[in-house]
Amino acid sequence: MNNAMDKLINKIKETNNPTVMGLDPRYDMIPECIRAKYEKNVEGACKAILEFNKGLIDSVCDIVPAVKPQIAFYEMFGVEGIKVFNETCKYAKEKGMCVIADVKRGDIGSTAAGYSNAYLGRTPLCDEKVSMFDVDFVTVNPYLGIDGVKPFIDDCKEYGKGIFILVKTSNKSSGELQDLKLEDGTTIYEKVGELVSSWGEELVGEYGYSSVGAVVGATYPIQIKELREIMPKTYFLIPGYGAQGGKAEDIALGFKDGLGGIVNASRSLMAAYKSDRWKEEYSEEEYGKATRAEAIRMRDELNSAM
Amino acid sequence: MNNAMDKLINKIKETNNPTVMGLDPRYDMIPECIRAKYEKNVEGACKAILEFNKGLIDSVCDIVPAVKPQIAFYEMFGVEGIKVFNETCKYAKEKGMCVIADVKRGDIGSTAAGYSNAYLGRTPLCDEKVSMFDVDFVTVNPYLGIDGVKPFIDDCKEYGKGIFILVKTSNKSSGELQDLKLEDGTTIYEKVGELVSSWGEELVGEYGYSSVGAVVGATYPIQIKELREIMPKTYFLIPGYGAQGGKAEDIALGFKDGLGGIVNASRSLMAAYKSDRWKEEYSEEEYGKATRAEAIRMRDELNSAM
Repeated sequence: MNNAMDKLINKIKETNNPTVMGLDPRYDMIPECIRAKYEKNVEGACKAILEFNKGLIDSVCDIVPAVKPQIAFYEMFGVEGIKVFNETCKYAKEKGMCVIADVKRGDIGSTAAGYSNAYLGRTPLCDEKVSMFDVDFVTVNPYLGIDGVKPFIDDCKEYGKGIFILVKTSNKSSGELQDLKLEDGTTIYEKVGELVSSWGEELVGEYGYSSVGAVVGATYPIQIKELREIMPKTYFLIPGYGAQGGKAEDIALGFKDGLGGIVNASRSLMAAYKSDRWKEEYSEEEYGKATRAEAIRMRDELNSAM
Repeated sequence: MNNAMDKLINKIKETNNPTVMGLDPRYDMIPECIRAKYEKNVEGACKAILEFNKGLIDSVCDIVPAVKPQIAFYEMFGVEGIKVFNETCKYAKEKGMCVIADVKRGDIGSTAAGYSNAYLGRTPLCDEKVSMFDVDFVTVNPYLGIDGVKPFIDDCKEYGKGIFILVKTSNKSSGELQDLKLEDGTTIYEKVGELVSSWGEELVGEYGYSSVGAVVGATYPIQIKELREIMPKTYFLIPGYGAQGGKAEDIALGFKDGLGGIVNASRSLMAAYKSDRWKEEYSEEEYGKATRAEAIRMRDELNSAM
């Protein structure tokens, strides 16, 4: 099987869990018992982040199908941070999880190819082709049109990888551009949805979904429903659940027969040990147990809303 | 003076040169005399790229005001590549050049803040704030609306930095999304132009231009002219000159009294020693001289078109 979306759906079915754990580490989110082991500088912070990430992955790798490291939280620690990003991706893959690198890259042809080489394909070097970050999926920005997307699609075909293209993002001001109405009465996000759908046609797998997916925010239920109709073969990566306000019943509008989307939660899973819901039950040393308990609660909530 | 656009304009006036050298290194672009010194692996390639970049910077730092490393070409070499990106930025700054990191980042609030910390601001760590890549400008993608832009603008204010937001990109398919017509008859790129213009209002400097600039492709002269009218206080970063087909007389439409834009050339400068124009005159060992000759030719061509 060489279709990334089939692989992801198989993991979702295997775990009966349509969720992805966002790995957006902030230094102050890390339990003090980990932070205390390392120096209070960039190198120390990066070591603490890696230990924390590994602990989180260990705690849920048998019940959560995927992780989504957001690269901004690693780039902000410079070169050392990028190392930790890479180590985190590798570790999650070793533990059998799908890795969705949330990089939201977007650029013109040859430059997009450079990004795609970095994350999905291989970097040409002399007569060789070298694998760099090697994740399963990346997120892509559509503002540059197909020129900026095609190099990723080519690598999806060649290497059995996938992408999620931004369509309707979860943030408050996403409508500033995405909700503008076009001449024909449709909105920009609908138009982008149509484009994404057509770009993915050649990559539809066994379950009827393309390896070219879409990012659709949990915070916009009406749009989730609309886009599910416009894009019947497009899998949704759904951020905005939990902390941002997206509800399980809203998210269910993007699903059909239990498939159609994968829901991200970052803070609510990573810092479950600090949350009102779990902080009485688990100490900070037991942060992994708290994350596991929250992952089970979230899974059950989503499954019962469907 | 703490306005990034004022600083850039001063450099442009000092050198009488409205150009920026793109640093988008490809391994096969590097002279064999440099490549031969290093091993044929990722580490070796990265060392060769750094030596090449430094040579290029040395050759033009007194006559070209800025460099624009495109981070995709470094990310494609993984962690080692990011190190070289960082070293390149540092070296160019030491040599007195402005550094525009072409990263085209764009994400929601806290994530955009992470990116902005990485490139323009500081990363919070315990009670400190640590500087990471520390460039003068970054490029930003507008698809997420002001949420994705504000953290950058905040750092522009606090640290005297600047951004260039994608408005009308130089690639062939840029119109697929950017040229769509809205209900009121304007296009998306015009609407984005208006937004960018309003977002930059608080950052207008001594020369009447904001530190919030716009990316406008040299390949679309009609749009350059239109956008110059819509955005009188916005400085343009203009890619697409040379190899992509943008002409000096087209670019001149974005200027007023010799100011208003900075024109990027990557391949034509970096690989000048291989070009039909200069390959007879300069050997590959003299790649820096060829780049300097081409930089002077480009400067004079642009200045005489204005």
